[in-house]
Amino acid sequence: MRILGIDPGYGIVGYGIIDTHKNNYVVDYGVIETPKENTFPERLQTIAEGFRVLFETYKPDEVAIEELFFFHNQTTVIPVAEARGVIILTAKKYCDRLFEYTPMQVKQALTGNGRADKKQMQFMVKTILGLEKVPKPDDAADALALAITHSQINPYLNDNMI
Amino acid sequence: MRILGIDPGYGIVGYGIIDTHKNNYVVDYGVIETPKENTFPERLQTIAEGFRVLFETYKPDEVAIEELFFFHNQTTVIPVAEARGVIILTAKKYCDRLFEYTPMQVKQALTGNGRADKKQMQFMVKTILGLEKVPKPDDAADALALAITHSQINPYLNDNMI
Repeated sequence: MRILGIDPGYGIVGYGIIDTHKNNYVVDYGVIETPKENTFPERLQTIAEGFRVLFETYKPDEVAIEELFFFHNQTTVIPVAEARGVIILTAKKYCDRLFEYTPMQVKQALTGNGRADKKQMQFMVKTILGLEKVPKPDDAADALALAITHSQINPYLNDNMI
Repeated sequence: MRILGIDPGYGIVGYGIIDTHKNNYVVDYGVIETPKENTFPERLQTIAEGFRVLFETYKPDEVAIEELFFFHNQTTVIPVAEARGVIILTAKKYCDRLFEYTPMQVKQALTGNGRADKKQMQFMVKTILGLEKVPKPDDAADALALAITHSQINPYLNDNMI
């Protein structure tokens, strides 16, 4: 099964694609960046277009995206949520199996500790995926962590579908 | 000039279309409703599809959408923002002139008072547009108020473009 993990944002959106045959392995990861000079509607278009290309190129079976909370990073929560709406709309066009996870669920899944720090998380992403280095930038590593989280949850007990 | 006003939401999205030749007059108004039984991604699809039909039917020249704030109606601000992102993406596909206004700007434009109440606002929408009754539901009246606001701002001094 192929999973696309997404770390939502409007300036930088992280993505990470893994295949789960036998062991998880990385297909691709990276970020979609939107130029600051562009208008906000143009930046949303760049995000939608970036995901269109990713879905058409990699045809993921399932998608795992981070859940947002309003108390978390308040000054940017509205534009991030606007971008997340665009990502969900685009994903839904290509894939019927969309799931969301909280940052705490992701930390718990990768380290067994819902309060793990960024370094511990990045070490686990590298280790689980058998990479030589921590994936960069951080947004891409976060997206891979979401994909790993999804791969570790028993699909018959998974109530994170949106 | 034809203006589409939009009151964003994810359960109910208000829209109101006015023409500004001579006096403002109403072309159409109403709401896009998304069924509670549907998943959130399906509701976003319904909103995108509803606006696609509105843009293809009415071909507005300019769009006025309410600006969101995170301190305002906190429990729903994230899904409303996600829906607003989808609306902006869809609008941008059809129209390059998108503007946003705060609720205070709308109240100021219609009544001269940035703290006008809902009844005063609805009375002004009815009066300015020469309607016999207040447009219903409230979300449609709010969307018409956004369109009226946009029609009253000098385009050469308008810094509300997004």
